[in-house]
Amino acid sequence: MKKMDGGVTAAKGFMASNTAAKIKYEGRDDMAMIYSEKPCVTAGTFTSNIVKAAPVQYDKKLVDSGEKAHAIVINAGIANACTGSQGMEYCIETAKATAENLNISEKSVLVASTGVIGMQLPMDRIKIGIRQMVPALSSTREAANKAAKAIMTTDTIEKEVAIKTVIGGKEVTIGGMCKGSGMIHPNMCTMLSFLTSDVNISKELLQEALLETVNDSYNMISVDGDTSTNDTCVILANGLAENGLISDKGEDYEKFKDALMEVNKTLAMKMAGDGEGATALFEVVVKNADSVDNAKVLAKSVVTSSLTKAAIYGHDANWGRILCALGYSGVNFDPEKVDLYFESANGKLQIIENGVALDYSESEATEILSSNHVTAICDMHMGDYQATAWGCDLTYDYVKINADYRS
Amino acid sequence: MKKMDGGVTAAKGFMASNTAAKIKYEGRDDMAMIYSEKPCVTAGTFTSNIVKAAPVQYDKKLVDSGEKAHAIVINAGIANACTGSQGMEYCIETAKATAENLNISEKSVLVASTGVIGMQLPMDRIKIGIRQMVPALSSTREAANKAAKAIMTTDTIEKEVAIKTVIGGKEVTIGGMCKGSGMIHPNMCTMLSFLTSDVNISKELLQEALLETVNDSYNMISVDGDTSTNDTCVILANGLAENGLISDKGEDYEKFKDALMEVNKTLAMKMAGDGEGATALFEVVVKNADSVDNAKVLAKSVVTSSLTKAAIYGHDANWGRILCALGYSGVNFDPEKVDLYFESANGKLQIIENGVALDYSESEATEILSSNHVTAICDMHMGDYQATAWGCDLTYDYVKINADYRS
Repeated sequence: MKKMDGGVTAAKGFMASNTAAKIKYEGRDDMAMIYSEKPCVTAGTFTSNIVKAAPVQYDKKLVDSGEKAHAIVINAGIANACTGSQGMEYCIETAKATAENLNISEKSVLVASTGVIGMQLPMDRIKIGIRQMVPALSSTREAANKAAKAIMTTDTIEKEVAIKTVIGGKEVTIGGMCKGSGMIHPNMCTMLSFLTSDVNISKELLQEALLETVNDSYNMISVDGDTSTNDTCVILANGLAENGLISDKGEDYEKFKDALMEVNKTLAMKMAGDGEGATALFEVVVKNADSVDNAKVLAKSVVTSSLTKAAIYGHDANWGRILCALGYSGVNFDPEKVDLYFESANGKLQIIENGVALDYSESEATEILSSNHVTAICDMHMGDYQATAWGCDLTYDYVKINADYRS
Repeated sequence: MKKMDGGVTAAKGFMASNTAAKIKYEGRDDMAMIYSEKPCVTAGTFTSNIVKAAPVQYDKKLVDSGEKAHAIVINAGIANACTGSQGMEYCIETAKATAENLNISEKSVLVASTGVIGMQLPMDRIKIGIRQMVPALSSTREAANKAAKAIMTTDTIEKEVAIKTVIGGKEVTIGGMCKGSGMIHPNMCTMLSFLTSDVNISKELLQEALLETVNDSYNMISVDGDTSTNDTCVILANGLAENGLISDKGEDYEKFKDALMEVNKTLAMKMAGDGEGATALFEVVVKNADSVDNAKVLAKSVVTSSLTKAAIYGHDANWGRILCALGYSGVNFDPEKVDLYFESANGKLQIIENGVALDYSESEATEILSSNHVTAICDMHMGDYQATAWGCDLTYDYVKINADYRS
């Protein structure tokens, strides 16, 4: 498995394009399109929020029905959530316009939106955007990068990844892009994440690999504890790598899943590190818990604690808040057995042994916490299970972004 | 039932005092004492956090054992949490020193601490503080007020209340004080709340009335989602009102419980409104839910949403975030039936009908949200049950307080 520079056009047969449709933003691209020269086996996971945006409902139905996807159209600026039957009508119109322009089946077009909740899409501009994007489709590295930029909202940087691996003697590539900065506390999936692969795989195993890897990647990040109405992660696989069809859980499946996990973990960490207002990626590793589920709950409880996140922003080794967050997680453990370490590129330091503070150096701790990627390691001494969660610090800018701007 | 100016000395036979023991703060009082001239029937509720501070463990044992409390000693600055066996030893020493100075039984002294987690108490200064407070005990209004000020940490204002009611022909008074500003997300109880009453009641019914009223008051507020290690609410009843003993759930019990609910609700709302950095009390009323439990979960989900809290700070009628927070609460409902209203001293406005935005005036909404007490009313149209939760807005100052200062 090898990481490479690339995004949604890295795998064979995939193209992307973008345009500025002036949906809400001025002076920047705000629509993107992904197209595969061959219809794709498709899997997806969607928000668990009861309030589901229209495009989430639309895509879920298509993916569940087993339709092969051929193209995805995405807009930023308006989420098309809480928009009633009109919002659903606009999904259908978007898919229809895309299908006509690409000369493909309407049922093979997925749609996705991100941005403000409650506003209706300006369909005239959406349709102009689609007409502009179709002739501009390209398999270049640049086209993928511009598409990743076009789907951003409060994100400060585009998020892409590409991984190559060899399956059944054939080179297989998975590429992806995602966006997400606020309203990030995925449950079943995250904001918007689009993955493309030339792997040859059955729909069932593609869906299973996606679910398994989403649970340990996107579902373990949190920026602010708010699970979005629009969370979507879809993967399109067109089979052009020409590996033998992956239809059982043998070695090929495991290799593909490992590569997909790397893709999803990389994108998830990029989202957490680019959380609204964040100055640091905050990683929480829970070791030696008595089950994987408990390890996950503990790690997420720490990574979502507002007080802990503010302390990380202040480079303050405020370990009491971490013990406190473990304590109210709902998981049973012995506080007098917990060890805690802080780690970053600047070093590693044990802070707590058996639930009580060691005589550590505050200045050394501050040095370690003054990094843009800080890890807290909690050793529960209860069993053999481990989990990792990713978040970010809580800063003035998070408040500024969300108090001053209807995002 | 009548609200009056007063605090922990309002009920017959209760005295209070305070002192500056220099435990952590300089130039202010940081210890308080409550004393009843008669031993009191005592009830208490304590944090559900697995990591329990030493004084929480100490008091819980005493209250559960049925010991009558005679005095409470409280310090601010150091929480005596995560302090191991040494911390527990210090609780015992504090109670012993208080008992000796007051000439009462060691088992009749409750202890409470709030402040930084992980530091040990300076016992020499605690003992000097106790010696100073005993001769200064007083039943004046001023003594209660100074005690309420002495227990503050990041609180900006002292929190007191007193209620008079008539039970069995006798005037009964309940007074109280509490503190709490950050790490506020009570579960079973809140930060520190001390209630005194001259009511004559059995221990069993005192405990039951406390539990019932705590669930609908302190347990419905949240500042930051972090459940503290030190949450404590105790009530002392000395019987000096001379009403006939309340020993069954008749009219007298209901009258007492109503007065106690008013005391606890008032203190809870004061804590929420004085949340760290807050500029407004944020009240969420969920109406017509299909059960009380679901109404509570929905109301708490909205009141704890970081995005909603930031929007309240920005006076932004960002109703999409409220629908979103209802949606990820875990409660099942029909998003297309929800109505939403904003209300404050500046007016009332319906924003959503049947899950879709009305054509409301943004400037009118902003005017309503520009108040220091803002209410969101969510009508679920599912049943007849209602719940109210209280929180506050999320501001720059919340981040500042918690990033810059080890509280």
